[in-house]
Amino acid sequence: MLNYNAPIKTYMDLLELFDYQHDVYDRDSVEAIFNGINKFCQDDYWPANKIGDQEGLVYNPENRSVQMPQSSHHIYQKLKETGAMAMSMPEAYGGGEAPLAVTCLINEMLSSANNAFTMGPGLTEGAIHALLAYGSDELKKDYLAKLVSGEWFGTMCLTEPHCGTDLGLIKTKATVFEDHYKISGTKIWISFGEHDLTDNIIHLVLAKLPDAPEGSKGISLFLVPKFKLDGTRNTVYCGGLEEKMGIHACPTCVMNFEAAEGWLIGEPHKGLAAMFVMMNAARIGVGIQGLALSEMAYQTALLFAKDRRQSRSLDKDKRELDQPADTILVHPDIRRMLLECKATNEAMRALVVYSAIEKDRNGDSDTFGLLTPIIKSYLTERGCHNISLAQQVLGGSGYVKDWHIEQFYRDARIAMIYEGTNGIQALDLVGRKLPKDQGKAFMALMAEIQAKEAGFLDEFKQASMDVRTKLQEAAMWLMTHAVKDPEQAGAVSTRFLNLFALCMLTYMWGLMTAKDASKIPVGKYFIEHILPESQTLLLQIKAGKEAIMKMGHEDF
Amino acid sequence: MLNYNAPIKTYMDLLELFDYQHDVYDRDSVEAIFNGINKFCQDDYWPANKIGDQEGLVYNPENRSVQMPQSSHHIYQKLKETGAMAMSMPEAYGGGEAPLAVTCLINEMLSSANNAFTMGPGLTEGAIHALLAYGSDELKKDYLAKLVSGEWFGTMCLTEPHCGTDLGLIKTKATVFEDHYKISGTKIWISFGEHDLTDNIIHLVLAKLPDAPEGSKGISLFLVPKFKLDGTRNTVYCGGLEEKMGIHACPTCVMNFEAAEGWLIGEPHKGLAAMFVMMNAARIGVGIQGLALSEMAYQTALLFAKDRRQSRSLDKDKRELDQPADTILVHPDIRRMLLECKATNEAMRALVVYSAIEKDRNGDSDTFGLLTPIIKSYLTERGCHNISLAQQVLGGSGYVKDWHIEQFYRDARIAMIYEGTNGIQALDLVGRKLPKDQGKAFMALMAEIQAKEAGFLDEFKQASMDVRTKLQEAAMWLMTHAVKDPEQAGAVSTRFLNLFALCMLTYMWGLMTAKDASKIPVGKYFIEHILPESQTLLLQIKAGKEAIMKMGHEDF
Repeated sequence: MLNYNAPIKTYMDLLELFDYQHDVYDRDSVEAIFNGINKFCQDDYWPANKIGDQEGLVYNPENRSVQMPQSSHHIYQKLKETGAMAMSMPEAYGGGEAPLAVTCLINEMLSSANNAFTMGPGLTEGAIHALLAYGSDELKKDYLAKLVSGEWFGTMCLTEPHCGTDLGLIKTKATVFEDHYKISGTKIWISFGEHDLTDNIIHLVLAKLPDAPEGSKGISLFLVPKFKLDGTRNTVYCGGLEEKMGIHACPTCVMNFEAAEGWLIGEPHKGLAAMFVMMNAARIGVGIQGLALSEMAYQTALLFAKDRRQSRSLDKDKRELDQPADTILVHPDIRRMLLECKATNEAMRALVVYSAIEKDRNGDSDTFGLLTPIIKSYLTERGCHNISLAQQVLGGSGYVKDWHIEQFYRDARIAMIYEGTNGIQALDLVGRKLPKDQGKAFMALMAEIQAKEAGFLDEFKQASMDVRTKLQEAAMWLMTHAVKDPEQAGAVSTRFLNLFALCMLTYMWGLMTAKDASKIPVGKYFIEHILPESQTLLLQIKAGKEAIMKMGHEDF
Repeated sequence: MLNYNAPIKTYMDLLELFDYQHDVYDRDSVEAIFNGINKFCQDDYWPANKIGDQEGLVYNPENRSVQMPQSSHHIYQKLKETGAMAMSMPEAYGGGEAPLAVTCLINEMLSSANNAFTMGPGLTEGAIHALLAYGSDELKKDYLAKLVSGEWFGTMCLTEPHCGTDLGLIKTKATVFEDHYKISGTKIWISFGEHDLTDNIIHLVLAKLPDAPEGSKGISLFLVPKFKLDGTRNTVYCGGLEEKMGIHACPTCVMNFEAAEGWLIGEPHKGLAAMFVMMNAARIGVGIQGLALSEMAYQTALLFAKDRRQSRSLDKDKRELDQPADTILVHPDIRRMLLECKATNEAMRALVVYSAIEKDRNGDSDTFGLLTPIIKSYLTERGCHNISLAQQVLGGSGYVKDWHIEQFYRDARIAMIYEGTNGIQALDLVGRKLPKDQGKAFMALMAEIQAKEAGFLDEFKQASMDVRTKLQEAAMWLMTHAVKDPEQAGAVSTRFLNLFALCMLTYMWGLMTAKDASKIPVGKYFIEHILPESQTLLLQIKAGKEAIMKMGHEDF
């Protein structure tokens, strides 16, 4: 049977590996919480997942409303009861002040069982973070408690038809109105922009004031509620829903702001900083989505491989001759695909917990900043790759809807795109996070890994030294070439991020196998069959920009 | 604007590269045919593609019938008029006797514009090949002409609920009835098993006779028409349609044979050989599907990248300061993704034409046999990978339905699975095709490449020597390890196939760049940024089966 998330034991093992400590959320109480969420996932959240995919949403143009499937209403109530939504938030607003190490694992559970719905509370969390960091006391008093309790949902309204990545181009306008503002413009791809789940929807909207400087330095952030505090309807409306590859039960809306009333969050023209508070919180969550669906796909494929019988083992001694054929788990290529998933999933989850504990201990440190784009990009890319491998294990059963794997792929594929495409994550890494303070955080992390290698088992020590040396060589290449030619950084950024990720996953395998011998076989698969990718990546990095940039536009 | 297939010029260039010659289908007449098909694709076939995806099919349980979208009826008529369907078939049955080099390029065009529909004529072609090779004169006389003209469609009924890859397990039974047989059993995943396009549907069905030996040596092939020649309805019915990730306008049917009347094709118990005639013809076609949709995805992404403006070039000299931002084609990571597609697509297409001309010249040679699993597996795997890269170029626009890329992925994903999963292709390569006659065909191909290298440009000569040496080293590793331990062959089979493919694509780039200097920039991208994957593959191969096979079933 499927777990509908990773087994709770793997979570608890990781908390122990990284010496998780907390007065309130101690390990016993955390395990109890995990078990509660797991039950909710099995009983309610997962069953609603397929219904949501098939039923989708209904847009009513007459009153510009969006009707969610009945199953979504049910799980919304149930999810509120679990208390998971408020768990990380400050006590002052009704939250539980749980550490990230706990909430990120809960996030994995929720995304595993129902990725489309989890977007709603996820974005609400992003809006809360921005309000907490930059909102006035009055805005906090008026809005935070109901967002924290989940009575209201929040959104992040950034993208416009002509701009996504380059937010300096936005055209949505804000003009002064009484003691606040009126907002006019069109936003697209607004997740949970409109729906009938909550009494109110609180939009956080990027717009430009009349005196705004050009580009991204002229963006301000506004709070625009669907219903104002006096109960009257604000003039923000959903203009339609997108038809998408997946996450069909997540309403992706065109939002029209028709001189809607809004309140400034933070200072004028300083909206980008507040937006990054929303985005950074969300990026770890998006990375986790890739891992979550990869885990579900792996479990599904394993279940299938243990049950399905086709052909005979190539090793005569392994044949079950009382059966008409052997389970496909005996076939090397099937095992290769499963191990590819397992060996990356386990290390990616360890990296999430490692990073979360770094944040719990040291706040928004430069180390956490370095790891954020890696988690967002690598976990979503490898996650989608793994789902496709798991789909392949099922053969034709992976392509039809019965086993859900094709939905996992469709639901996961967006994670490589939203909250900053993976290409943007790689640029964030090589352009901002890596060179910050002359690479201080990077060097400290390399020194930490080097120090820990002493405690690794031999094979893992060797592997870690090897990939760490490659990564440092690549960083040196960047220093030499990219400082004087930023196109060099752009050309190798994705490969550098992936090499960095392989170094971190090797680090995680070194730690895990040193602590728990039962992890060695899967760790060895990682070292022998996945780590060799670092060879290719280093060669690609050293090839630099030449072949990439020389082509004329007309030669493509 | 999209071409709805690769530009005709690229096809003509490849025919010239491989010195294509034909009395009837000379290059001028071929170009005219290509232009005709291209017009059909643009005017009719492509517009029906999205309609088919959205409308899908209607199953009527009362009379167990399947209703195709109206658009499919329209293109069925139009496609017949183009003459493309009969083009490769013998003149005696109304065909055009066109060489494979021509029809495989036409296949690419058709799959590009409408992959779901192309399955219908594609499977009909497979059925025709089997009938031609093994059918009695009477069966040929009764059925071939109408299949060749496209008046009737054919199917391949192999898979059953409990067996797909391992056809030795089939349970469908045949018993003698008058001068022919009655067939009883259930087949699943039968593409175009039932529909309302053609007056009759001719099923080619694997079943077991009462005296059949166990396993795959006891399979016979039968022809089971939906309507018998006297016009009465045969008792073969569609039990339902599969819900699938993609190819929504391709009816994937459960077929129930309820003592349906059937006629033996070939000898009793020798059905597997006839089935391989169907499969081998189809495998090249399936590989082409991967290429076709990868080409469409690339063109779509390029169109988008030339139009979409976001952010500024990292190189100040390339900035278009009269515009609010630069086209995203200036950004290195966007170019990387596009070049990844272009550098593989062009070489994969060359490999198709190279292989087709080998077949046109030497028939079903061992060299053609060696290339068939490579084309089926590598083109579909790299094709899906490329579509995902192209989707990434579009960002959010790649995830919504407007730009079709998400449909290309969904429609292409099945190609890695059907007609023998890619894993099975790899086993076919290392287990059958490679070792045949002590590797004679492989060695001859390596010698051919080595001889041609003399004419390559320096960089391409070096690259070809390098990857060829690696491939030969891998083949030697296989000889040493896999002969005495078949699990070693199974463990490295997929990596070996991919390394072989890289060697062939490098060969193609060597030939193309030696002939046409305008190809050098893209060829260089291939050498510097894709070929390094061969490093990883060789390391993975040399790691062998140990980490893959050692894990206990319970440790997964």
